[in-house]
Amino acid sequence: MIPVAEARARILAVLHATETEVVHLADAWGRVAAAPLRARVTQPPQDVSAMDGFALRAADAAEGAKLRVAGTSPAGHPWAGTLQPGEALRLFTGSIMPAGADAVLLQEDAEEAAGIVTVRERVSAGRHIRRAGQDFAAGDVLIPAGRRLTARDVGLAASGNLPWLAVHRRPRVAILATGDEIALPGEPIPPGGIVSSNAHALAAFIRAAGAEPLVLPIAPDDEAAIAAAASVPADLLVTTGGASVGAHDLVQQGLARRGLAVDFWKIAMRPGKPLMFGRMGETPVLGLPGNPVSALVCAVLFLYPALARLGGRAEVALPTETARLGAALAANDRRADHLRARLAPGEDGRPVATAFTRQDSALLRLFADADALIMRAPHAPAAAAGEAVEIIRLAALGI
Amino acid sequence: MIPVAEARARILAVLHATETEVVHLADAWGRVAAAPLRARVTQPPQDVSAMDGFALRAADAAEGAKLRVAGTSPAGHPWAGTLQPGEALRLFTGSIMPAGADAVLLQEDAEEAAGIVTVRERVSAGRHIRRAGQDFAAGDVLIPAGRRLTARDVGLAASGNLPWLAVHRRPRVAILATGDEIALPGEPIPPGGIVSSNAHALAAFIRAAGAEPLVLPIAPDDEAAIAAAASVPADLLVTTGGASVGAHDLVQQGLARRGLAVDFWKIAMRPGKPLMFGRMGETPVLGLPGNPVSALVCAVLFLYPALARLGGRAEVALPTETARLGAALAANDRRADHLRARLAPGEDGRPVATAFTRQDSALLRLFADADALIMRAPHAPAAAAGEAVEIIRLAALGI
Repeated sequence: MIPVAEARARILAVLHATETEVVHLADAWGRVAAAPLRARVTQPPQDVSAMDGFALRAADAAEGAKLRVAGTSPAGHPWAGTLQPGEALRLFTGSIMPAGADAVLLQEDAEEAAGIVTVRERVSAGRHIRRAGQDFAAGDVLIPAGRRLTARDVGLAASGNLPWLAVHRRPRVAILATGDEIALPGEPIPPGGIVSSNAHALAAFIRAAGAEPLVLPIAPDDEAAIAAAASVPADLLVTTGGASVGAHDLVQQGLARRGLAVDFWKIAMRPGKPLMFGRMGETPVLGLPGNPVSALVCAVLFLYPALARLGGRAEVALPTETARLGAALAANDRRADHLRARLAPGEDGRPVATAFTRQDSALLRLFADADALIMRAPHAPAAAAGEAVEIIRLAALGI
Repeated sequence: MIPVAEARARILAVLHATETEVVHLADAWGRVAAAPLRARVTQPPQDVSAMDGFALRAADAAEGAKLRVAGTSPAGHPWAGTLQPGEALRLFTGSIMPAGADAVLLQEDAEEAAGIVTVRERVSAGRHIRRAGQDFAAGDVLIPAGRRLTARDVGLAASGNLPWLAVHRRPRVAILATGDEIALPGEPIPPGGIVSSNAHALAAFIRAAGAEPLVLPIAPDDEAAIAAAASVPADLLVTTGGASVGAHDLVQQGLARRGLAVDFWKIAMRPGKPLMFGRMGETPVLGLPGNPVSALVCAVLFLYPALARLGGRAEVALPTETARLGAALAANDRRADHLRARLAPGEDGRPVATAFTRQDSALLRLFADADALIMRAPHAPAAAAGEAVEIIRLAALGI
């Protein structure tokens, strides 16, 4: 058995980011920048007013001073003149500062009547002006390569006048579920059969990670059928089932007909254990267990980082955090454990993670109700309630 | 000025969830269940083996006992007979337990040769059997109404044989950005103008929240043009700009021509302050500030819960958590403040939130680099480094 981290490192070592494509800003949310995104404009483009009020010369703006209103300049309607001593210009948030002015008097500190504005509060030079380039200058890197774009990033790119963005193509991930006993939802269920949940759950997980899933038809437990089903161009082929130690492990034999070079591991983990990784020609193949809970826990630990790498993300590490235990845990054995747990806010605000009493990997409903996985290292000693543990929030991964 | 919570409550009070539509499981990730989703099958459908091994009678399974192998039953191929005393059946994880058997001997605890299996480890009745309905029974509620579906939920629904799911229709949200000074990215920039970031950033935010954005063309600062632009059927109309106290607040006047009944507030908050909410016929209208940072912070505080309510989510509260301050904060004034901050893991694993020194709402780049908002209540006293503060993680909202 090899440790989780080693298996993950070996997977990541052979995966590469997809190539670059260009998308419109409207389609950019959740995509990964393929190159540093540089501003095409300076923001603000010139010195602008930060408030509604009056542009003036600070030297003129003693309390009680009266200035002649030389004009009005709404945002988007710059004033062409130069402000003279004793003059003020009515303007608004975002209006370009006129030549000659060096401060803005807030409108609530001003009284305007008959073309004259009276200063009610002294204003010093530079007040309420946003300087040209204060946010960024043309050519500045706004977003580094490898960042998955948030709504704020989309706004920032728009602000930098970038209607088209270079991003990594979404990885295409084919999913092959195998087994004589499984049917897709809605299909006739064979005698002794069950409804397959892995294919659709993995497809949703893959979509949440920003990739494009393709659910292949279920392959029966037959080498030739498996070989035929796996003939699909993809950046990654994910299989589920057929990877246990039983006599019906046909996925590897089936894919071997298509040239699979296999690196088959038992991982020192629970739930899970058997994991297959290899290459079928150019296509990396990740074989997950058939058990639904095991398959999805393995997806978190191995598929999530793999998709991050394929998708060009700079950060491929799983987002872990610390919680306190809500209930004691027994010492762990030699396998890393991943306990399904509820989270609740603790007295000091820190999350409290309480593992479900039942950790049977057959309980998909309990897993769906979990908020987090508690990560227990191999041979972790018994831990009392209140001790710190490492967790992964499931919803944060879209799973 | 009214408090943030009151404004939010008034918005939520008049919004209703969209109607129900039915989608295929493959399209269900991120959708919101419109009714409790009930299993159509029992899982497991019958007692099944939890492991690869041999079904037998526990009474026969003393250490060293030799049993006749009566057959093999792969998963999906139930064995029709009844196990007799002295017999064992070869089976695998997920295989239906044969009549007559009451336990499973693990294959690693067995030796098989010439049709005889030798018991190497005693097994007690009931071992390694997953009972029918252990995960769920037909008719059980798998997923409550109002839950936004995760990948695990999709798997659970599949497992319950639900190919079609009743979900709330995605709310349709129209976005109207206004202002003579703004252009959409790539368009010619008017003199003194800037590139609009709000429309695309809000569209991304709306999409992240599971709704469908529609970016309307930018309306100039003209009542008739604004009235014309706002003619679109939507579950919510979001405007940005035009809601300050200046002379160029034309959004309200423009929408008044279409019958806007307005509830205009100054909110006791920063950044932000002016917020407009009202109804134009049947369409609720949320007016956000024009400043990009203010608009997105207001989107977090008001639009996110509004979208959750429109989308039928049972939980409309913002997900807040507790962090420790990385640097001291001065006492707050009468407005709730929302400080852009970085998060880092602290010594005890708790997140440490450090507000940026510059909190100017014109700095969109700094906001894009932030991890969280630190929520400061009105009149919050000065806080030292290490004190607990309430935060909202921005990426968790897709923003």
